[in-house]
Amino acid sequence: MGQAVDTEISKVVNMILADYEDDRNINRTDINNQPDKQAIVDIVDKLMKIMYPGYYSDKVYKIYSLANNLPATIEDIIFHLNKQIVIVLKYCCKDRYKDDQEIEAEARKTTLEFMGRIPYIRGILETDVEAAYEGDPAAESRDEIILSYPGLFAISIYRIAHELFLLKVPMIPRIMTEYAHGITGIDIHPGATIGNYFFIDHGTGIVIGETTEIGEHCKIYQGVTLGGLSTRGGQALRGKKRHPTIGNNVTIYSGASILGGETYIGDDVVVGGNTFIVNSVEKGTRVSAKLQELKYSNSGENHKNG
Amino acid sequence: MGQAVDTEISKVVNMILADYEDDRNINRTDINNQPDKQAIVDIVDKLMKIMYPGYYSDKVYKIYSLANNLPATIEDIIFHLNKQIVIVLKYCCKDRYKDDQEIEAEARKTTLEFMGRIPYIRGILETDVEAAYEGDPAAESRDEIILSYPGLFAISIYRIAHELFLLKVPMIPRIMTEYAHGITGIDIHPGATIGNYFFIDHGTGIVIGETTEIGEHCKIYQGVTLGGLSTRGGQALRGKKRHPTIGNNVTIYSGASILGGETYIGDDVVVGGNTFIVNSVEKGTRVSAKLQELKYSNSGENHKNG
Amino acid sequence: MGQAVDTEISKVVNMILADYEDDRNINRTDINNQPDKQAIVDIVDKLMKIMYPGYYSDKVYKIYSLANNLPATIEDIIFHLNKQIVIVLKYCCKDRYKDDQEIEAEARKTTLEFMGRIPYIRGILETDVEAAYEGDPAAESRDEIILSYPGLFAISIYRIAHELFLLKVPMIPRIMTEYAHGITGIDIHPGATIGNYFFIDHGTGIVIGETTEIGEHCKIYQGVTLGGLSTRGGQALRGKKRHPTIGNNVTIYSGASILGGETYIGDDVVVGGNTFIVNSVEKGTRVSAKLQELKYSNSGENHKNG
Repeated sequence: MGQAVDTEISKVVNMILADYEDDRNINRTDINNQPDKQAIVDIVDKLMKIMYPGYYSDKVYKIYSLANNLPATIEDIIFHLNKQIVIVLKYCCKDRYKDDQEIEAEARKTTLEFMGRIPYIRGILETDVEAAYEGDPAAESRDEIILSYPGLFAISIYRIAHELFLLKVPMIPRIMTEYAHGITGIDIHPGATIGNYFFIDHGTGIVIGETTEIGEHCKIYQGVTLGGLSTRGGQALRGKKRHPTIGNNVTIYSGASILGGETYIGDDVVVGGNTFIVNSVEKGTRVSAKLQELKYSNSGENHKNG
Repeated sequence: MGQAVDTEISKVVNMILADYEDDRNINRTDINNQPDKQAIVDIVDKLMKIMYPGYYSDKVYKIYSLANNLPATIEDIIFHLNKQIVIVLKYCCKDRYKDDQEIEAEARKTTLEFMGRIPYIRGILETDVEAAYEGDPAAESRDEIILSYPGLFAISIYRIAHELFLLKVPMIPRIMTEYAHGITGIDIHPGATIGNYFFIDHGTGIVIGETTEIGEHCKIYQGVTLGGLSTRGGQALRGKKRHPTIGNNVTIYSGASILGGETYIGDDVVVGGNTFIVNSVEKGTRVSAKLQELKYSNSGENHKNG
Repeated sequence: MGQAVDTEISKVVNMILADYEDDRNINRTDINNQPDKQAIVDIVDKLMKIMYPGYYSDKVYKIYSLANNLPATIEDIIFHLNKQIVIVLKYCCKDRYKDDQEIEAEARKTTLEFMGRIPYIRGILETDVEAAYEGDPAAESRDEIILSYPGLFAISIYRIAHELFLLKVPMIPRIMTEYAHGITGIDIHPGATIGNYFFIDHGTGIVIGETTEIGEHCKIYQGVTLGGLSTRGGQALRGKKRHPTIGNNVTIYSGASILGGETYIGDDVVVGGNTFIVNSVEKGTRVSAKLQELKYSNSGENHKNG
């Protein structure tokens, strides 16, 4: 591009730079002090290797032995997770601490506390793999589930993020579950409480809200919403129980919506597809939509491609 | 593999090469002259850094100052966007122009015109961030929204693509919104018209069609379709108004479908979950599905895992 | 971090390493012998270049000529696909073969057989591109479809995976379709049977189960489930026909669920949006949900942002 164009480019550059000079939210540029999304995604990917050491392998693992490599990966996670936690604590909650040293001590404590829970998390993930194998007629093997099922992927990342949420780490848990959401279409808020042996089949479109509680041995299909009844309160509703409570051994078929913080679904309930549930359901019940009345007419398409 | 296998491999290679030798669509191989999907994705990623300079940081930004780096990124976008626009104009619409020079002049003009609209786009994005914070009780902070909400990501890319669509750039806008669709499950056609303060929560499964119009302060949940009534006309419907018009301050809850080019949803309407709307709704109305009749029976699952 | 912290880190590392020492599923660490997900994704990406040589280009292609490069890519696919098939056959089904040599011979045969079907697969993909162009009023051109439509992407990968499924390759087909599911939200089991001229619009949330059969010239929208009626049988249902059969020239609008292995949808049927179909539908019929009864009341939102 010639000189006239250069001048035009300069004008555009300056116009854009000028646009950063007020104090709108999107202009926050204290970039050295913000959590780094990509760093958090890398931490999650490495944690998945720790959770399933034989499955999420990489070049290095292929060359050396597992025993020699996992410690290096674990220390790497500790270093980077600690760093991101320091950043988010300084970024979000500086006023809660006396000084930077207190924040750093808190971050170290939280990081090690979280890492110490990994065997506990792995214990639950083993039950989730088992539930998927038992629950899905199309599953060839447990290996296929670990290698390819998006439901297990989303649940695994939720279980990691949930422990960080319980340890009151801000922002990082949500960035982790949104990473899983992006890949799987399954949106589980890190604040939700979910029991062992949890199985999600297909999964695209599932939403599980922040204050949802789910018991053990539950099975949920694509398009299910466990959500709030209304969000008209906006920020005024923060922290309130807004999402349903689900008992043990409950199956929820595709497209069902169960809404409201006072909605309790009892043990052993089966919720049929495409139902819209805003009231509690007693244990041992099968609830389904009345069979939809259908209209039939001539499609008028008989000769379209004929 | 041995020599016999080598011969078999040669046979397979030749069989596949022979298959490219007719004039089917999938055989177009004028590859130096086609838009480059990956290049367009890179442009979008860099534009997101320009839109939210503190959030979509990278290694370089972490080292040097923002003021020194943004101009370089802006010039980089101009160079690559200009190049891709030249390619698509030559590729799709060569017959509209006298010669290559005219196409190149047009591409330069369009690129600079688009870049000049960035402050305008950023002005709208600030309202979208605000709407998300106001609308979602689970939002910890505006930063969390910018860093992790897929709705804001999809809206941001739509707003970028929409300006290119208005500037009549072929193909590139759709490649951009499909990139966002892939990551978020939110499918907004770049041709749709959407007002300020737009909030999408969760978002997976949302479809907003090409000729949809949406006012200001609207809020849309996962699984909502703003679509056409029928597509039996196929290409004959191209360019016609096929999708609904939504007023200001409208909330549309999850799973609702609003269909048809003559369907008008008035200001201040609340559309309940799982509704199927094919007629206009007057302003100030709350419209919901009649409470679904449910059937209850014994689930017969009481002892399954008991 | 200081020495006290080092000791704590060592404790955490040892605790995690100790957790791998039982025989749970998630502890399988015979990593040199497991299929490599990333390698399989790379194979799919390269196969897409073979299917659409002009569209999924890369740096190398931009420099040299297509004719010189495709053979190299084809040989590369053969090498890596063969390697992964050897791995999965050894991993899943070692007991079916006399020795490793027999497995390697079988893998070679399967790999070349699959590669030989590429012209056949490309023949079908050409019909799918045509169907998308004919079916979508928003499609600017066939190129736009190949470059940006997630439906075509998911269908293409399904068609590749389906041939490997028919050749009885374990695990790899499902890893391939789940890769497409992750990007598009469209979940097609590699075992499903789908005729020519298949068109998926938008697509997010679509589930097509393992034993589904679909005829030619069919068109399916976002959120459609072609699924099983109940999965309570779990693994006992493996291999049984559990999913519906769809005739030729059938259109299924968004959000419809068609369930059950004995459900037959005849030729030329149009299935309306949000229907829930568990019985067969005769050919030439248009079936739709009775228009939903809606309740209207005052939204009480008139002054919210006014």
